[in-house]
Amino acid sequence: MQKASISESVIRRLPRYYRYLSQLESQGIERTSSRELGIQLGLTASQIRQDLNCFGEFGQQGYGYNVAALRRQLKLIIGLNKSRSAIIVGAGNLGKVIAANIDFCAYGFRLTGIFDIDHNICGSEIAGFTVQHMDSLEQFCRETEPLIAVLCIPQEAAQETADILTALGVKGFWNFSHCDLDVDRCQFQVENVHLGDSLMTLSYRMPKDED
Amino acid sequence: MQKASISESVIRRLPRYYRYLSQLESQGIERTSSRELGIQLGLTASQIRQDLNCFGEFGQQGYGYNVAALRRQLKLIIGLNKSRSAIIVGAGNLGKVIAANIDFCAYGFRLTGIFDIDHNICGSEIAGFTVQHMDSLEQFCRETEPLIAVLCIPQEAAQETADILTALGVKGFWNFSHCDLDVDRCQFQVENVHLGDSLMTLSYRMPKDED
Repeated sequence: MQKASISESVIRRLPRYYRYLSQLESQGIERTSSRELGIQLGLTASQIRQDLNCFGEFGQQGYGYNVAALRRQLKLIIGLNKSRSAIIVGAGNLGKVIAANIDFCAYGFRLTGIFDIDHNICGSEIAGFTVQHMDSLEQFCRETEPLIAVLCIPQEAAQETADILTALGVKGFWNFSHCDLDVDRCQFQVENVHLGDSLMTLSYRMPKDED
Repeated sequence: MQKASISESVIRRLPRYYRYLSQLESQGIERTSSRELGIQLGLTASQIRQDLNCFGEFGQQGYGYNVAALRRQLKLIIGLNKSRSAIIVGAGNLGKVIAANIDFCAYGFRLTGIFDIDHNICGSEIAGFTVQHMDSLEQFCRETEPLIAVLCIPQEAAQETADILTALGVKGFWNFSHCDLDVDRCQFQVENVHLGDSLMTLSYRMPKDED
């Protein structure tokens, strides 16, 4: 499993495979093929085979894939069996939604703390956590060593906060702040959720003659 | 400007260009080059030139790009000068955050209505809108013809709701429901924000020896 050589687009398709196989399994379907997967996911059978071949030998000629076995393998490949510590930085509206609605455990993480700089928010309860002040961040990180931070803070504060967090040992960012973090991509992982970029992409795709 | 032939990755980079140029303009910087843009955006100068060449002739040999002019052009290309009607379907936590935090006007849309199926939520005020019941959706669409719908509803309801909306003339979806919509991609545009897929991608990228 040579991670470095696997293309971004293959990596982006893994969650879709996993999601679809989970759906098949919950419907009691035991067996599928690259052809069937392809039809459902809008890909060719050969692309599915190529993608999965990046990670090992899964299907069997003439049989296809065992749904439960393939799903289990993908779960391990994506790391969903892990329980890595995650903190949320920024407990405004978005931070609250993330805390309350994302089932971190389903994605290989566990939420361990929520932080904010606003004294009015600190002390309040969100998703079973008491929001802590950023002043406590350093001690918290030294004691519990969170692996990733979910950044739900304004753009202006994002880079400085990321620098503090990397110095405290955080290795990955789920970045909802609308800016591109300047961190060493060899050492740190950044997954951006740029909602504005996403809406601009939709804007671009809409027919130009519509108002 | 032959939209159909422009690759997905180029389209995905347009918002980043626009965002970065806006930042340069706000800093009073008048001129940039494909080399400088490349360094900032982690791309090669030649890739920047190739990307922009998909849309027209912008830079000048020896001068580079006029920041304000290029930003203005990209604004038109992305369609950010438009004001297309958008509705939010689903006024739970996520729908509320989108309504309150996304500046639709900055992205070529205007929010015109918020809908929910839950009678307890209907009638409440979000971002200056009174949440309407889904029963009013049909009449609302016939009268105001929204172009896109932001889907903030559970996965189970997403496909049925999308079918209703396409029948009512909606042409695009900003889809936060964690499922892939089955709509004719030639007629309808779908931009997915699959937060779970995004977190799985981060999970995959994290070192496998960490818990």
